[in-house]
Amino acid sequence: MREFPELTEKARRAKEASKKLAVLSTQAKDAALEAVADILQRNMESVLAENRKDVAAARESGMKESLVDRLELNEKKMAGIVEGVRGVMMLPDPVGSSEAAWVRPNGLRITQVRVPFGVIGIIYESRPNVTVDTFALALKSGNAILLRGSRSAINTNIELVRLMREALRGTEVPVDAVALVESMDREVVDAMLKLKQYIDLVIPRGGQGLIDMVVEKTTIPVIETGVGNCHVFVDASADLEMAKRVVINAKCQRPGVCNAMETLLVHSDLSETFLPEMIRELKENGVEVRGCERTRQVAPDVKEATEEDWVTEYLDLILAVKVVEDVREAIAHITRYGSSHSEAILSNDYRNICRFTSEVDAAAVYVNASTRFTDGGEFGFGAEMGISTQKLHVRGPVGLQHLTTFKYVTYGHGQVRD
Amino acid sequence: MREFPELTEKARRAKEASKKLAVLSTQAKDAALEAVADILQRNMESVLAENRKDVAAARESGMKESLVDRLELNEKKMAGIVEGVRGVMMLPDPVGSSEAAWVRPNGLRITQVRVPFGVIGIIYESRPNVTVDTFALALKSGNAILLRGSRSAINTNIELVRLMREALRGTEVPVDAVALVESMDREVVDAMLKLKQYIDLVIPRGGQGLIDMVVEKTTIPVIETGVGNCHVFVDASADLEMAKRVVINAKCQRPGVCNAMETLLVHSDLSETFLPEMIRELKENGVEVRGCERTRQVAPDVKEATEEDWVTEYLDLILAVKVVEDVREAIAHITRYGSSHSEAILSNDYRNICRFTSEVDAAAVYVNASTRFTDGGEFGFGAEMGISTQKLHVRGPVGLQHLTTFKYVTYGHGQVRD
Repeated sequence: MREFPELTEKARRAKEASKKLAVLSTQAKDAALEAVADILQRNMESVLAENRKDVAAARESGMKESLVDRLELNEKKMAGIVEGVRGVMMLPDPVGSSEAAWVRPNGLRITQVRVPFGVIGIIYESRPNVTVDTFALALKSGNAILLRGSRSAINTNIELVRLMREALRGTEVPVDAVALVESMDREVVDAMLKLKQYIDLVIPRGGQGLIDMVVEKTTIPVIETGVGNCHVFVDASADLEMAKRVVINAKCQRPGVCNAMETLLVHSDLSETFLPEMIRELKENGVEVRGCERTRQVAPDVKEATEEDWVTEYLDLILAVKVVEDVREAIAHITRYGSSHSEAILSNDYRNICRFTSEVDAAAVYVNASTRFTDGGEFGFGAEMGISTQKLHVRGPVGLQHLTTFKYVTYGHGQVRD
Repeated sequence: MREFPELTEKARRAKEASKKLAVLSTQAKDAALEAVADILQRNMESVLAENRKDVAAARESGMKESLVDRLELNEKKMAGIVEGVRGVMMLPDPVGSSEAAWVRPNGLRITQVRVPFGVIGIIYESRPNVTVDTFALALKSGNAILLRGSRSAINTNIELVRLMREALRGTEVPVDAVALVESMDREVVDAMLKLKQYIDLVIPRGGQGLIDMVVEKTTIPVIETGVGNCHVFVDASADLEMAKRVVINAKCQRPGVCNAMETLLVHSDLSETFLPEMIRELKENGVEVRGCERTRQVAPDVKEATEEDWVTEYLDLILAVKVVEDVREAIAHITRYGSSHSEAILSNDYRNICRFTSEVDAAAVYVNASTRFTDGGEFGFGAEMGISTQKLHVRGPVGLQHLTTFKYVTYGHGQVRD
């Protein structure tokens, strides 16, 4: 593999910085976050100027406008980014808190103490707000961060990181607590994913292709934030007015995000009453419905759903609809096609609710609520680093506490093992 | 990549079994564990007969006697294995316990509930007790298990798994909750490490070579159980009688395990008093000492330690000894050469103890106690699946609770997101 001295040096320095960061007080970290918020607020114009270069280049290269929209910053978005930094500053510091402590029969006092990971590597796509958001979360949780953003946002990212590092210069936080890998060579990512001696954790932020690539190539532990093929099952006993509200919310409130519903499952008892009304209401809300055969019997103008529809995360105002016999068939469908993200049952039947919550294997299972709540803010974690769809370490919203690990500090008075 | 139908079918069935296992009661799991303990107790002779074949073949192929010793079973070892299964049966079931529950301002009641991973893949070396131990831990924590042991233990493993599956036949636990990959083709491991759709977690149990291979090849989340290059630092203020006891215990009580001390660091104030006495005592206990220059000034018959010695996990009655200026140099040495397993300071100085416990980055940090306590049993976890040296998910002893993940089950009454 080719060597990238810029990368290796930045990673090495981040590791050094992480050792200092790990033992800094909350006050010192908060002061640094305030300095970062402040410098970004005062230098919005220089960031926007660099961002305009990226946007112009993106349009010239024919980038879709929906993607340009993600790339483009303006004063309002910048103000949101600054506010985000201050929001993270206000969150409790997880480092040093003790999850558990106990005394063994031999008198050893074992304490499980939260500590930072060290260096977090972030590999991400075009949104430049990720550059600042992830840094704020990493810093508050005592981690250094090594960023590798996309080519399309390179000028914006360079300016953001330059400013953040400048802000750190006057604080106790080492400047190398944040660094951007500026090389756009594709192989630099491969090399980064092998730097296990410096990087303790990798978090890819972007589409499934990016995530799969990272998981495939790295030997460093990964937190995967993946797709959400989320379902809402409307049981026969559901409060139907509530069901309509929740279904519309889960599909329409923000269709482009991972916790939006992609397939609606309806109990067969409701196929001739609730279902046609629901479909009408969905259509009124601009939703294109694709249905199973039984759905099309009661709503003949609905397009036929294919096998492809059951697995697709539309991220759009499109919804697959299937009539199921009962909660068992609903669970079986979710088990087969779901992505273990967020799944909801709308029901008033105790047994069916118990069955659904215990048998559905997903990060978040909802009873009589919208899937849209799977979110760090909505869970009360404050900001988040994404939604984990893996099972190791963290599932669902990745909050500050999930960016830490622990160690056992054990106090004795000369105990030896027999 | 080649296809291995036996492997894929066993993995698929394990996944199916895991769904049933996940919702089984503790009673049902305990009854199955009792049946397994019982059948192994009643069929010791058939296991020992198969084991004798493996041992004979191993000796014929020239296996070192220390490894043959690990492979060989006898009645006492078998009784220990059976006792181990009953021990796991007695442990509390982590599944279904709620780590946290809270109510959001909008009335959503979020509960974080422990659930099994699903299927755990174990890739392990010669000790056949691992076959039973890991199955018992997996079953109690509601996971199915897919085992791939070594060629040298194949006959023993086949018989053990045959008996365990037979025991399950009369219980509520599906037979496919345990399966052994019998093919000894090397590529079968590569194929197993890619079965992400069926295997939720991989735990390699063996030497560093095996672990590195697994981490390199798999895209499935891994719990790494790695080497322990453990240090004991004797500070100037230590109780020297206690220090001698702890040092001898950490090195000699069981030198072949990962939590044994490999390097002793001694404060320079003690180099002419404590150190020569300590070295004498170590030698009396059969320890070969390799020392830094300052050590050899006070103990001239000590062999010179090279750079290689600072990084070596001897797993033997050999000890590297280094004189350090102070706690800072001790921490710097540990940071440079340690493997983040178990590190101890023996001291009576509050500031040095604080510095050591906060700056040393290891799974277990001890104050005035032997490193030998890093162990599931000693920590009070009951049995363990090894000692994790990674930071994601679990650090230190891997107990039953670490073989589970969680999901958020959220109860509402029609909440939607604004």
